[in-house]
Amino acid sequence: MTGKVFLVGAGPVNPDLITVGGLRHLQTADVVIYDKLIAHSLLDEAPEGAELIDASKTRHADTLTQDQINELLVDRAKQGFKVVRLKGGDPYTFGRGSEEALYCLEHNVEVEVIPGVSALAAATAAAGIPLTHRFASAGFMVSLGYVKPEYSYLINRESQAKFNGTMVFFMTQLADLETILREMLELGYDPETAAAVIHKGGTPDQEVLVDKASTLAEKVRERWGDMPIPSIAVLGAALNLRDNLPRIS
Amino acid sequence: MTGKVFLVGAGPVNPDLITVGGLRHLQTADVVIYDKLIAHSLLDEAPEGAELIDASKTRHADTLTQDQINELLVDRAKQGFKVVRLKGGDPYTFGRGSEEALYCLEHNVEVEVIPGVSALAAATAAAGIPLTHRFASAGFMVSLGYVKPEYSYLINRESQAKFNGTMVFFMTQLADLETILREMLELGYDPETAAAVIHKGGTPDQEVLVDKASTLAEKVRERWGDMPIPSIAVLGAALNLRDNLPRIS
Repeated sequence: MTGKVFLVGAGPVNPDLITVGGLRHLQTADVVIYDKLIAHSLLDEAPEGAELIDASKTRHADTLTQDQINELLVDRAKQGFKVVRLKGGDPYTFGRGSEEALYCLEHNVEVEVIPGVSALAAATAAAGIPLTHRFASAGFMVSLGYVKPEYSYLINRESQAKFNGTMVFFMTQLADLETILREMLELGYDPETAAAVIHKGGTPDQEVLVDKASTLAEKVRERWGDMPIPSIAVLGAALNLRDNLPRIS
Repeated sequence: MTGKVFLVGAGPVNPDLITVGGLRHLQTADVVIYDKLIAHSLLDEAPEGAELIDASKTRHADTLTQDQINELLVDRAKQGFKVVRLKGGDPYTFGRGSEEALYCLEHNVEVEVIPGVSALAAATAAAGIPLTHRFASAGFMVSLGYVKPEYSYLINRESQAKFNGTMVFFMTQLADLETILREMLELGYDPETAAAVIHKGGTPDQEVLVDKASTLAEKVRERWGDMPIPSIAVLGAALNLRDNLPRIS
């Protein structure tokens, strides 16, 4: 009998932010394949004897490649196990969850997706920045800071430059932020727009650098040398509420 | 001694999607002020004797106005109580959480924000639509379907028309969707873009209507007469993955 794969959003690095349903699946898993950016104390919730596999996906140093992760999911499910794929944040928000689900279904393995709290919501809230606010932001745009050249058609810089809600970039390199901001400013984005980088958002080690669009990248270089990982960049008027809202740092 | 307010994201109408931390706050609350779009079974988790207040915010028929909710939060906290404001989805994602937090802090009441799973992630996942996918979407844009005319500066239709990731609108009226799509198409948005309306997303009663940008509004009218509430509209290439991903309906 074939088992089943559960793509569980574990939330950001905070064990309180996994969902009740996600935790229940974890507590009944035969196999747990987990990412780096989860609260590692969650692994204590897995049943004794469960197989725990560190997938530790990061951009530059994969412990396992995406292909290997996909194959493991299918292999363990085919052995009849309940497989929990414990993913940082939300599986379908920059989590490659859809790639894993597609692979499983192509190989006749049943999949269920348990949504999670994305760093998008957790990091911004902890920094005192609401994604939306009646007078400041009627929406938000979320983009990868980097895509391979062959996928550049997925990015429209003009749309970003003209956007006037809260803009969030999931970043890995300072050079990408420099490119994005330079191109946006050339296309008319207001250089005075409030801008920030949130490092380790929502964790006790969170650091927030607040500046403006025109000089944010420069300030990041001064403070950290390069983009610290994990970080998100946030721009928009909702940042101006930060001084009056609860926040970690 | 003044109490404290916890703005807890209860997730969408699914008791499994509240976070572990959110549930713990609920289980130790003196007062719970809850929205309509939460799983009402969650209220059984409140301690016996806790005061349960139905705020049932909807656009057209508020049981309590936003001002009344703000005042209640402050009043109960000033009486020394632990107040849990149980909000559908995530407090800072179209949840007016920032308004409530601002009001509390202005009145010297401490506030903590517990992020939640937004319908943004839950409804799309349940419909088989990943917000991001390597070949189809490097990001997503999320907008209110309607803002009052005095806040129209918060919307830039050109930015929306040029966006090529997954686009999500939180909708309340069909007329708004008609306006949005007409204006986007006039500004060059591809009329063939895959488009859908997800009604009661992520719940067992979920309904999904899939069409394309140019005729989506018309199809909604044919099927439901008006925009059923709650619904979100979703557009973009990630919709094409739906046939191959797990989904509720």
